[in-house]
Amino acid sequence: MPSPFNWERRVEFHETDAAGIAHFSSLIIFMEQAEHALLRSLGLSVAAHATSQTEPDAIGSNLRWPRVQVQAQFESPARFEDVLTIQTYVAAMGQSSISYEHRLSIDQRTVATGTMKCVCCLLEDSKLASHRIPDPIRQLLARYVIT
Amino acid sequence: MPSPFNWERRVEFHETDAAGIAHFSSLIIFMEQAEHALLRSLGLSVAAHATSQTEPDAIGSNLRWPRVQVQAQFESPARFEDVLTIQTYVAAMGQSSISYEHRLSIDQRTVATGTMKCVCCLLEDSKLASHRIPDPIRQLLARYVIT
Amino acid sequence: MPSPFNWERRVEFHETDAAGIAHFSSLIIFMEQAEHALLRSLGLSVAAHATSQTEPDAIGSNLRWPRVQVQAQFESPARFEDVLTIQTYVAAMGQSSISYEHRLSIDQRTVATGTMKCVCCLLEDSKLASHRIPDPIRQLLARYVIT
Amino acid sequence: MPSPFNWERRVEFHETDAAGIAHFSSLIIFMEQAEHALLRSLGLSVAAHATSQTEPDAIGSNLRWPRVQVQAQFESPARFEDVLTIQTYVAAMGQSSISYEHRLSIDQRTVATGTMKCVCCLLEDSKLASHRIPDPIRQLLARYVIT
Repeated sequence: MPSPFNWERRVEFHETDAAGIAHFSSLIIFMEQAEHALLRSLGLSVAAHATSQTEPDAIGSNLRWPRVQVQAQFESPARFEDVLTIQTYVAAMGQSSISYEHRLSIDQRTVATGTMKCVCCLLEDSKLASHRIPDPIRQLLARYVIT
Repeated sequence: MPSPFNWERRVEFHETDAAGIAHFSSLIIFMEQAEHALLRSLGLSVAAHATSQTEPDAIGSNLRWPRVQVQAQFESPARFEDVLTIQTYVAAMGQSSISYEHRLSIDQRTVATGTMKCVCCLLEDSKLASHRIPDPIRQLLARYVIT
Repeated sequence: MPSPFNWERRVEFHETDAAGIAHFSSLIIFMEQAEHALLRSLGLSVAAHATSQTEPDAIGSNLRWPRVQVQAQFESPARFEDVLTIQTYVAAMGQSSISYEHRLSIDQRTVATGTMKCVCCLLEDSKLASHRIPDPIRQLLARYVIT
Repeated sequence: MPSPFNWERRVEFHETDAAGIAHFSSLIIFMEQAEHALLRSLGLSVAAHATSQTEPDAIGSNLRWPRVQVQAQFESPARFEDVLTIQTYVAAMGQSSISYEHRLSIDQRTVATGTMKCVCCLLEDSKLASHRIPDPIRQLLARYVIT
């Protein structure tokens, strides 16, 4: 079992709701943010810019990763100013898709778990088309793959 | 097959992201909003207030419905000012939980589908405890149950 | 004194915070939404798309209105499911800028007031450049101008 | 001139909009977050819990600081993954109110400036009543006051 990518995120006030806890949508957004933090930590570019290249480059600077599937379970509440630890694995890597698995916790207590499936897309002239995940990116992500 | 609950929601500007489309979290939030609109349409109270009652009342004014599971698929993009039609069914109703099924579309084109599982909780003195769904509420929701 | 543009907006659950009321940022966002609703009501295009035209057209389809100044006062709380009435005037119209004035209320009780100054910008090849407000748009907005 | 409180915040993807930049409401929310970070850095409690005490304590654990006025100017755009530096001063401290002044910048380029006026409120049995700022809190904040 590989080590997960670890990231931390404090619950901000506007992310809470009238039930006094972090709104479930905030917890789902934290999962996307952890994924972006993971990609940044590998030197990959997240803020893709459209180019006229027809092939992805090694750091993914003309790629995008729209999510096609999200699934989450909420087990216990997170409150304003709580610092969540987010642990992220790559649960599956297909030809052109990646599924990330996230666990949000506070001091070992699980707050939420979830899976997000993203598709590798080439951003060419403002159009998105799914594309095979480039090998250099596949290799960088390998360390987080659960086998 | 029963008729779904139908609701409409326009994509607002702050709900879009730098990809030029409604952020996936906005679409998930629309599902929660549709659920609240459905409950309101049945005369049920959503804005629960804590009371000292130890039994739920018929319109659920001391109930809350935290979600424990969310699952969504994103099929096509929604853009700023698009008006989404949200169709909602009750996919399952257990002793104390309800699963809603949502379909978001624009002119017959499916944008997203999703399921949310919520638990009936009694709000007593600011504490939440799961509770059997009261019969009057169960009867009101029956018209949307997919059998 | 002209009649204001009137718009209604229900407070949704995710817009509340742990103080049990609509977060102040939600109320500010409602002001932007009212402005967009006002423009739509006049047949103006809000969802501008970049074109290669170098002049704005009469319905503003290649214009954008980024805000350069926002100012708001919060007088009383709005809660989940409250329906806010938003009244909007044009407080000032310069060569290339418009200041909107908003009042958010619930049954005559003022919740918030605010002013937003927006700049007319031509969106050409993904670049924004400030531009004189086209006369047809100026004329359409005239009915809401406080003199 | 005192040194400001310095805080950093990365623009996350869901905070951008279809114009490709951080939505103005995100920048305003960053100002509130910087205020909370400043209070935390002084050992003050932000996540106030209602108590039955009728006097505030020294670390403000039964205080709340609702904002009554917000004002902001937007000078240049911030994009996805940009790291903003937020510099915060106390611009004025009255009997029961504090005005914070914020400057958001990226590498010396000003993105936005703003002022937020908050009122010291005692949270007693879920009710808010404005209250004189306790002297220990006043003293802690003194280091950031612009005179």
